[in-house]
Amino acid sequence: MATERYHRQVILNGFGEAAQILLSKARVLVIGAGGIGCPALQYLAAAGVGCIGIADDDTICLSNLPRQVLFKTEDVGKPKTIIASKRLRKMNPEIDIICHPVRVERAHILNLLRGYDFVLDGTDNFESRYLINDACVLLNKPLIFAAVSGFEGQLAIFNVTGKQGNRCNYRDIFPIPPDPGEIANCADNGVLGVLPGIIGTMAAAETIKLITKTGEPLINQLLQYHLLNQEAYKINISPGNDYIIAAHENDFLKMVDPIFCDTACNPTQINMEQLISLQNQSTMMVDVRERHELPLLNEEEYRKVPMTEFMAFLDRDIAEKNIVFICQHGIRSRLAAQAIQEKYGDSKIIYSLKGGIEKWKNYF
Amino acid sequence: MATERYHRQVILNGFGEAAQILLSKARVLVIGAGGIGCPALQYLAAAGVGCIGIADDDTICLSNLPRQVLFKTEDVGKPKTIIASKRLRKMNPEIDIICHPVRVERAHILNLLRGYDFVLDGTDNFESRYLINDACVLLNKPLIFAAVSGFEGQLAIFNVTGKQGNRCNYRDIFPIPPDPGEIANCADNGVLGVLPGIIGTMAAAETIKLITKTGEPLINQLLQYHLLNQEAYKINISPGNDYIIAAHENDFLKMVDPIFCDTACNPTQINMEQLISLQNQSTMMVDVRERHELPLLNEEEYRKVPMTEFMAFLDRDIAEKNIVFICQHGIRSRLAAQAIQEKYGDSKIIYSLKGGIEKWKNYF
Repeated sequence: MATERYHRQVILNGFGEAAQILLSKARVLVIGAGGIGCPALQYLAAAGVGCIGIADDDTICLSNLPRQVLFKTEDVGKPKTIIASKRLRKMNPEIDIICHPVRVERAHILNLLRGYDFVLDGTDNFESRYLINDACVLLNKPLIFAAVSGFEGQLAIFNVTGKQGNRCNYRDIFPIPPDPGEIANCADNGVLGVLPGIIGTMAAAETIKLITKTGEPLINQLLQYHLLNQEAYKINISPGNDYIIAAHENDFLKMVDPIFCDTACNPTQINMEQLISLQNQSTMMVDVRERHELPLLNEEEYRKVPMTEFMAFLDRDIAEKNIVFICQHGIRSRLAAQAIQEKYGDSKIIYSLKGGIEKWKNYF
Repeated sequence: MATERYHRQVILNGFGEAAQILLSKARVLVIGAGGIGCPALQYLAAAGVGCIGIADDDTICLSNLPRQVLFKTEDVGKPKTIIASKRLRKMNPEIDIICHPVRVERAHILNLLRGYDFVLDGTDNFESRYLINDACVLLNKPLIFAAVSGFEGQLAIFNVTGKQGNRCNYRDIFPIPPDPGEIANCADNGVLGVLPGIIGTMAAAETIKLITKTGEPLINQLLQYHLLNQEAYKINISPGNDYIIAAHENDFLKMVDPIFCDTACNPTQINMEQLISLQNQSTMMVDVRERHELPLLNEEEYRKVPMTEFMAFLDRDIAEKNIVFICQHGIRSRLAAQAIQEKYGDSKIIYSLKGGIEKWKNYF
């Protein structure tokens, strides 16, 4: 470790040589070498993170350049990982840079993540975001999450136990992905290049703080940053239970995030009248809320299968033709319905009560 | 203007083509191509600011690299302006980059600033900071100010009339420079590279907002940003009167900021007993507070020379051997004493009442 290069960091009161050594030993995977990934990579490499992985399957295009500051105009058409790694090596030849010119996919993400101590998600789509989150939960990897939309940015650290003993992840804020088409992607929305610049640099800062145990990293907190008025506020995250994440690698590999399948996989969302009309047919009614949740429903009518016990339920054979899932707000029931639709395909008809018990409480 | 390059900015609701055209016509001078200047330059160039000047007389050293992300290890020893401009031209060949490989000095700063519409101060020392501020006030140039110290950063826009009709500058917060040695410079203090990265990128964002009239730029506000806990707060700035800035170019050129002279220029700071002992000698006592300030002092004993009328007083001949300046808190009096010491050198003895009338109120 060249003392001269890092001199100003080493003499900084509250950082120092011990922190610099922790940086030099850290292995950080940055997923997405775009508007957020470029500045994050730049400052992680400059700071002296010992090994940095870059995962991205994209090539550089001209419209990337107002925010993807590792790339030059002559680089257009070339792979982002190759160009980014060349630049970073020239900035700091004392560290290792590893290229992964792939898009993260369920089939290989666990192996990819195993080589690193920290993961920084700088991707720009919900499919990757949920996949990275779930893989980090399964592998117990600290995840630095960063995203932008319009003039706002978000930043958080997931999968690290906070002071209160909690350990939260992206699904504790947003349990399930939005429906396809519900949220426009960045390419449709537009972005001012300097915003991912700020959020990506802040993401590098949080990564450095986490690695070096400096200050108060954003563990179990979501920072919401507003570019237009330079205001920011922090939201405390609490563990939720409106989601499932596979607890074992085999389950994870088999899982298909139903939201990203074609619409044939989507369960039918029904109202209370439709639910009642199904009661006289070959129908299993399943309450996927946890055991402590109120109101308690008649167990002869509604089978209790809490989401925390859902994996076992998935393995059982079901005789009924129809399955109706219900929960408090209709979020978990939709997720359960999607998961089970995957298993049975067209051989059963799967329903979710839209709005949940809360919406139809007069009927229960 | 290549439409494709700026496509994502142009389609952004709230920004659009009109804003992009304003950027392309703007001329921004970035003073200091260091930890703040590098990211600021990067994002201003990437965003499409039409003409960017870079003023810096420094060469690159190895310990710059953890925060000065425009430079590669092989660039060590080369001039910052040359390397920065090469990189920026490769990022965006559609804009003009002008190198000014000089340290800003009183003798030439006015001419330098005249070529630009906006000035971004990314310097790291008080001498340059006050000089740039005063030159911007004199020339009515909008100034984007950015600075870091320890784990904290500051950001503000000066010399732009705000909603309340006020127009503030750096001296409205910090009227006079600290004494030499009072504040360590960055080289002594250390800095974590990612902090100027965040503040410099935010400074580019404020510059872009100001140029394009987007959102609420930090006019008459000082943003104080804390890296360790990701907290930030804004301080509203009000016009002060504890300082003098030359109103005419000739006065500006003649001015020497006394604080940066050798200590021989520093006035003697005295207590009330010493002031009383001077009253029987050849001494002029000068109250530099404004006319409305209380308590009113006996005008036979204390001559009234408000700081706002100080330039005229500087031109007059004074017969007395000693001059004692007083004001409410001892800040303006010290500034006045320093300015007049410059004029008279050793031919008179100049004093300032330390702590001002407030400290010694029982005597007045």
